[in-house]
Amino acid sequence: MLNVISLTEAVELIQAKLGNQELKTETVALDSSTGRILAEDIVAKENVPSFDRSTMDGFAVRASDTFGASTALPAMLQIKGEVLMGEETLLEIHPGECAVSPTGGMLPAGADAVVPVEHTDVRGDLCLCYDSVAPLQNVNRKGDDVSEGQIVLKRGTKITPAAVGVLASLGFSSVSVLKKPKIAVISTGNEIVPVNVKIAFGKIRDVNSHLLLSLCSSYGCDCKSYGIIPDEKEEVKKALLSAAEENDVVLLSGGSSAGKADLTAEVISQLGKVHCHGIAVKPGKPTVLGEIGGKAVFGLPGHPAACWFMAELLVRKHIQSLCGQTAETVTTKAFLSENVSSNHGREELLCVRLEGQKAFPLYAKSGVISQLSSADGFIIIPRDSEGLQKGSEITINLFNRP
Amino acid sequence: MLNVISLTEAVELIQAKLGNQELKTETVALDSSTGRILAEDIVAKENVPSFDRSTMDGFAVRASDTFGASTALPAMLQIKGEVLMGEETLLEIHPGECAVSPTGGMLPAGADAVVPVEHTDVRGDLCLCYDSVAPLQNVNRKGDDVSEGQIVLKRGTKITPAAVGVLASLGFSSVSVLKKPKIAVISTGNEIVPVNVKIAFGKIRDVNSHLLLSLCSSYGCDCKSYGIIPDEKEEVKKALLSAAEENDVVLLSGGSSAGKADLTAEVISQLGKVHCHGIAVKPGKPTVLGEIGGKAVFGLPGHPAACWFMAELLVRKHIQSLCGQTAETVTTKAFLSENVSSNHGREELLCVRLEGQKAFPLYAKSGVISQLSSADGFIIIPRDSEGLQKGSEITINLFNRP
Repeated sequence: MLNVISLTEAVELIQAKLGNQELKTETVALDSSTGRILAEDIVAKENVPSFDRSTMDGFAVRASDTFGASTALPAMLQIKGEVLMGEETLLEIHPGECAVSPTGGMLPAGADAVVPVEHTDVRGDLCLCYDSVAPLQNVNRKGDDVSEGQIVLKRGTKITPAAVGVLASLGFSSVSVLKKPKIAVISTGNEIVPVNVKIAFGKIRDVNSHLLLSLCSSYGCDCKSYGIIPDEKEEVKKALLSAAEENDVVLLSGGSSAGKADLTAEVISQLGKVHCHGIAVKPGKPTVLGEIGGKAVFGLPGHPAACWFMAELLVRKHIQSLCGQTAETVTTKAFLSENVSSNHGREELLCVRLEGQKAFPLYAKSGVISQLSSADGFIIIPRDSEGLQKGSEITINLFNRP
Repeated sequence: MLNVISLTEAVELIQAKLGNQELKTETVALDSSTGRILAEDIVAKENVPSFDRSTMDGFAVRASDTFGASTALPAMLQIKGEVLMGEETLLEIHPGECAVSPTGGMLPAGADAVVPVEHTDVRGDLCLCYDSVAPLQNVNRKGDDVSEGQIVLKRGTKITPAAVGVLASLGFSSVSVLKKPKIAVISTGNEIVPVNVKIAFGKIRDVNSHLLLSLCSSYGCDCKSYGIIPDEKEEVKKALLSAAEENDVVLLSGGSSAGKADLTAEVISQLGKVHCHGIAVKPGKPTVLGEIGGKAVFGLPGHPAACWFMAELLVRKHIQSLCGQTAETVTTKAFLSENVSSNHGREELLCVRLEGQKAFPLYAKSGVISQLSSADGFIIIPRDSEGLQKGSEITINLFNRP
């Protein structure tokens, strides 16, 4: 009934059909830029540092004046004055002269090195240097860190705290970044009730909206809930249309039965296109991939665990691609604590809990959510596998913890 | 001049002196709770699911009626009616009877299993079952996921997206969490100017404020900048006092010379206590640890790279401890691309860039920030090491990317 493709094919399909979608840009303050994606190359407008400076407390000298200096035979230099921290110095150092200099102080003209204070002694207006320094020793030269015109951070870079530091050093108090992807979250189903109401027999609470809002926020998106929509074609259509118009990606969850996925697929095909209807993976089979008005629409399973896996494996990758990032899954290796059986013909996803180097499978009945929160990650059992042996080394996809 | 301790001693010292500090709690909406720390045990107020339900589209039956059923000899059951999705059913199934049931539908009284629709055929008001089911097959029992009274999430748990799902399933639309740690960030130094002004000779921009604000936000804190304070005792004192009063942790950076660290230490000792003055690590030596009014005060080096390392190694751990979390550093193993020399007598921190299994050291002069943003993590070279050999396996502390 479902036209089923593999997980890998699903990822490729989304990339092929919707990989060209582009996000708009906006300017944000430096202090709000962490985690955002640069929308422009950052070109240094100046040298960092903007002047030669000392990296030690000591005496700015002409290095050649100290050559051969030792404890027995110190170089004796005339102290011309003092470099003040944070001030431009107009001192000039000629042969036989030096100046007191703090760490970070501007190197006076003529000086090319700094003798650390612990290798010196002062006698009146003379400085005794007990050690020699080589030219440029204990000095940061103008442009050592960054030189003017250099591309320091490339368009598409995710802004880390270190990048914030670099931007600050270059005088950027704001930057142009990609707008956060806007994600619409819709739950469907006559049996679904809001979290905060008393539950009647036959009903279940809306887990998926909150799960998807939390997940997509952790992916760096702006998320909006479109509420719980009953299983009525026209209602679903209305919600999907406005969600697709106002957002970059639409996530609709609900219904793990073939019948419900059919409803989702039918509505999407009336408003746009269905690219795939069913994925050969357990759990996660009743997943629909489509588009409305050029925006990706994911019809996700109603079972929270299945919904969660498909969000991690498909939605997250699409969001990363929207942001120009290559999909990045953090993995680790561990050894399986017991034999795991598998079904032929489809990949299987299995949550595991890590204890040191050991991975313990977490089995959960369909529809069970509570165990998810104790999982550290999951493994993908290949479709043609006969199962996995106890003690075998496996690769674990770690969950993107907040 | 400095009374120097090791990095490990510094971490233990902060824990011993300030490990009892406690954060207040607050109630937040479920959709704003991701990444926060639970301030209470979460006890299930109800069973999940709250009723026995079908996990398949099919027929709710008494399993014993199907025993021995096969394609050749199907069980024939009278269809008593249909369970409606999301509705309480009042149907009762007696021997020889069954009811149409959707996935997620409530199991009628008397039924104890579900025969999947693909193993059945309907003839008038009779259902032909071509396969047997065992009791409880294709059924989620009341409380299967969570049973009433069970502690589902413990106080101190960091709320992941999966935990949000669990909380939603249990009807929690808000939760009690620890308040975010409040962090004050102060830059000091006559040479420091704000990021957005034209830079004069002798001055450098305020990198550390922005770096620390970004880092501490990524650690989950509420951060506030107290600006750039000149190297005047009374001004630093005033800033420290109000920062300690209004926050849980105070970060003051500035000055990599012994003289400046001395000023910081002197002011802290006048307002509270200094616990440590100097750490045997490169870079990072001129670090001061103290407290004012029971709040931790970190006097961090002025050099951005050193400031960053000390924030990652000391401040982050203290913040995690405030939140009741055990310090968690994500590490990976790789092989060194070249020989690395080292200094005896102090630990050394060295940034590395990863390329597959290979780690390339990133050497940077003191005060250089630009290379930090291309680092994937750093290694700690032990104080008694003779250096590290090319090709040796090393443990890399990965940066906490946003």
